[in-house]
Amino acid sequence: MTLHPTPALLDSLYWITLVAVIVSSASAVLKAGFKQFDLFGVIIIAIATGLGGGSLRDMLLDREVFWIRDQMFFIASLGSAVAIFLLARLVVIPPKFFLIPDAAGLATFGVAGTLVSLMFDAPWLIASFMGVMTGTMGGIFRDVLCNTPPVVFQSPLYATVSWAGSLLFIGMLYLQLDVTLAATIAGLAIFVARLLALRFDINLPVFRFKEHRQ
Amino acid sequence: MTLHPTPALLDSLYWITLVAVIVSSASAVLKAGFKQFDLFGVIIIAIATGLGGGSLRDMLLDREVFWIRDQMFFIASLGSAVAIFLLARLVVIPPKFFLIPDAAGLATFGVAGTLVSLMFDAPWLIASFMGVMTGTMGGIFRDVLCNTPPVVFQSPLYATVSWAGSLLFIGMLYLQLDVTLAATIAGLAIFVARLLALRFDINLPVFRFKEHRQ
Amino acid sequence: MTLHPTPALLDSLYWITLVAVIVSSASAVLKAGFKQFDLFGVIIIAIATGLGGGSLRDMLLDREVFWIRDQMFFIASLGSAVAIFLLARLVVIPPKFFLIPDAAGLATFGVAGTLVSLMFDAPWLIASFMGVMTGTMGGIFRDVLCNTPPVVFQSPLYATVSWAGSLLFIGMLYLQLDVTLAATIAGLAIFVARLLALRFDINLPVFRFKEHRQ
Repeated sequence: MTLHPTPALLDSLYWITLVAVIVSSASAVLKAGFKQFDLFGVIIIAIATGLGGGSLRDMLLDREVFWIRDQMFFIASLGSAVAIFLLARLVVIPPKFFLIPDAAGLATFGVAGTLVSLMFDAPWLIASFMGVMTGTMGGIFRDVLCNTPPVVFQSPLYATVSWAGSLLFIGMLYLQLDVTLAATIAGLAIFVARLLALRFDINLPVFRFKEHRQ
Repeated sequence: MTLHPTPALLDSLYWITLVAVIVSSASAVLKAGFKQFDLFGVIIIAIATGLGGGSLRDMLLDREVFWIRDQMFFIASLGSAVAIFLLARLVVIPPKFFLIPDAAGLATFGVAGTLVSLMFDAPWLIASFMGVMTGTMGGIFRDVLCNTPPVVFQSPLYATVSWAGSLLFIGMLYLQLDVTLAATIAGLAIFVARLLALRFDINLPVFRFKEHRQ
Repeated sequence: MTLHPTPALLDSLYWITLVAVIVSSASAVLKAGFKQFDLFGVIIIAIATGLGGGSLRDMLLDREVFWIRDQMFFIASLGSAVAIFLLARLVVIPPKFFLIPDAAGLATFGVAGTLVSLMFDAPWLIASFMGVMTGTMGGIFRDVLCNTPPVVFQSPLYATVSWAGSLLFIGMLYLQLDVTLAATIAGLAIFVARLLALRFDINLPVFRFKEHRQ
């Protein structure tokens, strides 16, 4: 299934991506802010988080990287970082709060990654994985740069929810649902499922090998 | 020396790459399986390991990334991961066993990386390094995501054997050997040399600076 | 503002990049040399450091990666690594000495990254960030591969100085200064400012959130 890039679809993609950049950058500031970085260090981590996953997606698809020509995305990332910085001077923000914009980034970049891959003729299985990759990679960059273990491999249902959401999105498109509507439903489903998994600590069984001595 | 992409050469490349993806993904599951990841976490690490080195090669050469349009490679990576997962439920696999598919991945992706670079007009020295890079990068992604020091910098003769094998491969092509034969010889040479280095713990002298106080 | 790639500009870019590759590779050997890597491990880290930041820049801009066709850059990286290796056998080099070629790499790759981005029609804000990214990314690769926290997030004024230098460079180009002159001034400014920040331990205030309990 190939999506044709109609103006309405490109418009939806633009706004989804803008939201994704803003929330991902915010998640980065909320995490990096508890480390000993200076202001520019935090801003660079915010930009790498906000623009990194989508950049990798675009390089893999050999598509123009989304933030190079249109500087709105870069400005949104920078603005989000500075706004959270100022906010955190006024209000006490608990350390775990970064998980909320992180879940929003997983949802929005997941949908955006799937959408763009379908527009570039990727088969549906590949497109669903590109959604997972786009959704999770920014957070992986953030956590590696913050020198903490990536949340994607530790936290309940992270990759699972992202993959299921991408597949749901593709299923709805296959059933001829309107793209914007399908994107909204899939995005909300990822976001809500991830927060529920966090709230009630729902986990897949941990994958562990039989040990030698037991 | 430029290689012309004949159908026979592209066919060889296809099969070498498929084997490389399968063994690299298997090495990832065998390593990640001893960590506390859930099933989808392990699968994502397997895919990053199986497809990562070749993706970086293709992006550096500005070539279409090999697994985007033809989903066979992605399916092979996924299938390999699931198969090893099921196997490890039945049989006890010692932790160090991942070094065997890892050596096979080093060999096959090393040959594939060199081959593709020569097809894209890279000079021989660059092509030999692209072989090393393609062969080692999947394992670096695997180890960074598993949060362990990359095997490439710690384990006997890893990069050495890979580089020597790439140069051997290019030498045989220069002497007009058949590409498939040369690829097989070079691949086996890397694989066997790496296992021998592991078995007999053969090391290059560690490169260490003179310390201040001595 | 778009820069037109005149022969003189391309010539300047060539030499700036060559210096950047040499000093960055040297910084990597000087850092990795105090770890337990074998010779080829150190060489691979040197090449990743010397070529990595510029490779990412070129992939993001969808430009031919600078070291694939012209092997001079690869040879320079390799030669620099071997030369430092030999030197370190003869002379005792203090561990912190790597910060000097590291600062030179930050300056030269910063200027080269900004320059190339402007040639590729990137808006000035994006170009300034691409300068920071190109200048810092090699060192990030080096430090991640050496398994130490990236110097960019820890060391005085690192990103700050780089960003300010890129903006200074763009400002001088806007005022119609000769490109080679502007590049030299901006590069020296970054290098000197970084060394002064190190020498006198000048820091931005560390960005830290209010903690819960205070």
